[in-house]
Amino acid sequence: MTRIDHVGIAVEDIREAARLYTKGLGIELCHIEAVEDQGVKVGFLPLGTCEIELLEPLNDDSPVARFLARRGEGIHHLCVQVSDIEAVMERLQTQGVQLLSEQPVRGAGGSLVAFVHPRSANGVLLELIQDS
Amino acid sequence: MTRIDHVGIAVEDIREAARLYTKGLGIELCHIEAVEDQGVKVGFLPLGTCEIELLEPLNDDSPVARFLARRGEGIHHLCVQVSDIEAVMERLQTQGVQLLSEQPVRGAGGSLVAFVHPRSANGVLLELIQDS
Repeated sequence: MTRIDHVGIAVEDIREAARLYTKGLGIELCHIEAVEDQGVKVGFLPLGTCEIELLEPLNDDSPVARFLARRGEGIHHLCVQVSDIEAVMERLQTQGVQLLSEQPVRGAGGSLVAFVHPRSANGVLLELIQDS
Repeated sequence: MTRIDHVGIAVEDIREAARLYTKGLGIELCHIEAVEDQGVKVGFLPLGTCEIELLEPLNDDSPVARFLARRGEGIHHLCVQVSDIEAVMERLQTQGVQLLSEQPVRGAGGSLVAFVHPRSANGVLLELIQDS
């Protein structure tokens, strides 16, 4: 079953940004995790079967820092869960869809993930995550 | 139960943009609806309890047309479902959160909706929708 897994929002400061969701909407900031590989700190706000991820850069060279410098705070990516990521990637490639990697890579929590280039997804950085 | 209701993506052409989701990810484009008030045509792609909404402008003066002119195609807004929209709006206002309207308005399908100004939501146009 394909479903929305999470929406990633690039922010300057996770704790400050989380206030709207925690105090305003009653959503819990359940934990914060550093993903050193991607130079990002992630704050998880679960909402039913989906979550909002607040992304704060760990350093000035990270992709999220570059996004903030270019566009300012805002929605960074949309992540959709699929049941067989390799089959989906193969199908997309035969359809001429540009992916950011040939093979899935390990994301937060060790899940297999891949990204569709915004050029092939109407300006959306679309993440695919393998159903675990 | 607060949950993600949908993610809105601004596109030039719904049918062309839908191809990635229908042919690539096997998600159905279940229907297309014109929301004349907002100058927008909406294509619905259901994913479990959430959906992706593709937003195509009906005219050059609509908010979505202005978004496209300014930013190009991409994620336009995030919509979160709440159980009591008026209570949430009142709480947000006492917290100094800027809303786009004093009262909820009628959105697609007649639901009560309201928007948090991106200035108060880290650059995100955050829609609230009343649980129906």
